[in-house]
Amino acid sequence: MRTILLTIEYDGTPYSGWQRQPGRPTVQGEIEKALSLVCGKRVTVDGTSRTDAGVHAFGQRASFSGEFGIPTDRIQFAVNNALPDSIRITAAEEKPAGFHARFDSRGKTYIYKIVDSCGPDPFMRNYYYFVKDRLDIAAMREGAAAVCGTHDFACFQAAGGNERETTVRTVSALDVSEGQAVFPDGTCAREIDLEITGDGFLYNMVRIIAGTLVDIGRGRMAASEMSGIIAGCDRSQAGHTAPPRGLYLKEIFY
Amino acid sequence: MRTILLTIEYDGTPYSGWQRQPGRPTVQGEIEKALSLVCGKRVTVDGTSRTDAGVHAFGQRASFSGEFGIPTDRIQFAVNNALPDSIRITAAEEKPAGFHARFDSRGKTYIYKIVDSCGPDPFMRNYYYFVKDRLDIAAMREGAAAVCGTHDFACFQAAGGNERETTVRTVSALDVSEGQAVFPDGTCAREIDLEITGDGFLYNMVRIIAGTLVDIGRGRMAASEMSGIIAGCDRSQAGHTAPPRGLYLKEIFY
Repeated sequence: MRTILLTIEYDGTPYSGWQRQPGRPTVQGEIEKALSLVCGKRVTVDGTSRTDAGVHAFGQRASFSGEFGIPTDRIQFAVNNALPDSIRITAAEEKPAGFHARFDSRGKTYIYKIVDSCGPDPFMRNYYYFVKDRLDIAAMREGAAAVCGTHDFACFQAAGGNERETTVRTVSALDVSEGQAVFPDGTCAREIDLEITGDGFLYNMVRIIAGTLVDIGRGRMAASEMSGIIAGCDRSQAGHTAPPRGLYLKEIFY
Repeated sequence: MRTILLTIEYDGTPYSGWQRQPGRPTVQGEIEKALSLVCGKRVTVDGTSRTDAGVHAFGQRASFSGEFGIPTDRIQFAVNNALPDSIRITAAEEKPAGFHARFDSRGKTYIYKIVDSCGPDPFMRNYYYFVKDRLDIAAMREGAAAVCGTHDFACFQAAGGNERETTVRTVSALDVSEGQAVFPDGTCAREIDLEITGDGFLYNMVRIIAGTLVDIGRGRMAASEMSGIIAGCDRSQAGHTAPPRGLYLKEIFY
């Protein structure tokens, strides 16, 4: 009995999210189809994050266990051959028995990519949140600082997620960085990346934090309001939910 | 009666090509739908190039004529509001009566984008031709030089295109340039761009030239064979047809 941990990169655009659903294209469904072909038997995987429809990943993780003929160092190549081009296995490693990609994870990092002062680029429309207004990065950084730490983040939880026992989470870092997006036609625009690391995230938490920071950047909310929003534990006081297309699951920590 | 010339950028991935077809999403169809909405009457446009399914454009042109209430300088904004994000009008200008985007064009430039030594990037899979082999750029440049000039290019014409009176065309430039593609996850790969300018192109001509140059770059054909291939006027002697996803209509000349 072997346990294998996969690292997976994907473009979430063509999929109804990570989680397997009958009759719909999902990332988990495609990976299980390819793995089952390669292993010659039905294989199911446990993913770390159930990313929503349209959300991307640079470093999703998923584990599976069983008896398989294929050597571990051949899995990446063989599974990639069977996968659609929108999903790539970037690593496959053997883990001790009992290892589980989700239960054993200690935290994760997401990146949320924004382009401001700009309508959607026709080619990159599914890979950034294009915001027509010019955003105030200093204000966004001030708002982001108030998010860091251990808080009850009920204000950033969307309805419809799992009702969990606690809405307390620790955000260990939330960086707002400025760069340049270069589009296929050679034009450029300012890119603002939000990089957030925490021990876990509530349903839609990263997208609601991103939307709230965009509202602060636009001047619709004051950065100084962020602490009160978190303390209030009321979803309706936070900003809008930023669209899935700007969100990337960057890394999982064990 | 006014005649308007549009400049159009689009991601060809979601479309069955430029040309209007009943029951299928096409770029022309989307533009006519948006223009008809904005102008308050049925509008049809004449595009310069009938790009194939999956082929992109930075600078497609299309003209239309009629009596419209909307001022020319409002057309771009209004039509973009009615278009899907994968298509953008980048300019709209008034032209003299009788002007026609296709018949009046004197030439065009295409770019064909290749990434070599690399499997497809999950995010950029629809925007480059990913070639696993390492390509010999010097050999490709030698082959490209033989394409320049006025020749009978029947060897680069796919079956199924219009039977034209002549297959003689003038290629005024074919540059092979080396750069770097940067993918959303921060990884890089070598990018090879073929930029070709001519007075006109036969059906699939640019894609067959690109495929032949890739075959030369891989060492499957010798660069010195290119002149003989052109002189032979036989499609079966040229290389493969490169996929549509690497092709961009860059500019039309008047």
